Amino acid sequence: MKTYRQYCTVARGLDLIGERWVLLIIREMLDGRRRYSDLLRGLPGIATNLLAERLRTMQRDGLVECTDGGRYVLTAHGEGLRDVVDAISRWAWPLMDQPREGAPCRSQ
Amino acid sequence: MKTYRQYCTVARGLDLIGERWVLLIIREMLDGRRRYSDLLRGLPGIATNLLAERLRTMQRDGLVECTDGGRYVLTAHGEGLRDVVDAISRWAWPLMDQPREGAPCRSQ
Repeated sequence: MKTYRQYCTVARGLDLIGERWVLLIIREMLDGRRRYSDLLRGLPGIATNLLAERLRTMQRDGLVECTDGGRYVLTAHGEGLRDVVDAISRWAWPLMDQPREGAPCRSQ
Repeated sequence: MKTYRQYCTVARGLDLIGERWVLLIIREMLDGRRRYSDLLRGLPGIATNLLAERLRTMQRDGLVECTDGGRYVLTAHGEGLRDVVDAISRWAWPLMDQPREGAPCRSQ
């Protein structure tokens, strides 16, 4: 992820969560730990090497940890993104009147 | 922006606001209407053609309008993103203990 190089909380946050798929990976883990295969199933369309890359970056940034059992779990810092995910969800709710084609979201 | 093609409020929202720079453009307009040159100044690093492209897409998606005076202003729907921007800002606040080099954010 290229940093925005701005001294601003919004830009600084987006440096960590602005990359494509990151917030959907967070969404998948808000209900609990997930195996790599669970994440792949919950994120149709993501390439397996891209998921691996995102998880590495998210671990480096302290959002996600890998447990002994090979499951991914949010850190407390990652869990703090629930408010962001919820805010996006509330904002986008009216858009669902005109749903696009797609698989149902696991968290709904 | 590629759509995630998921029937999920989070994914649907990110289809509109997940592209790089979009939420920072929104941030710039939360305090009021902005000229194109104001936006360029407030978003160091954005290419002028990329800003134009983002504004076109955001107008198409109903987030932004262009006024007679050539200023850009948030629609009510775009204004609704204040909660999302605020949630990211709150989440990222602790990260500012270790600021990266960069210009101060206009909204701070």
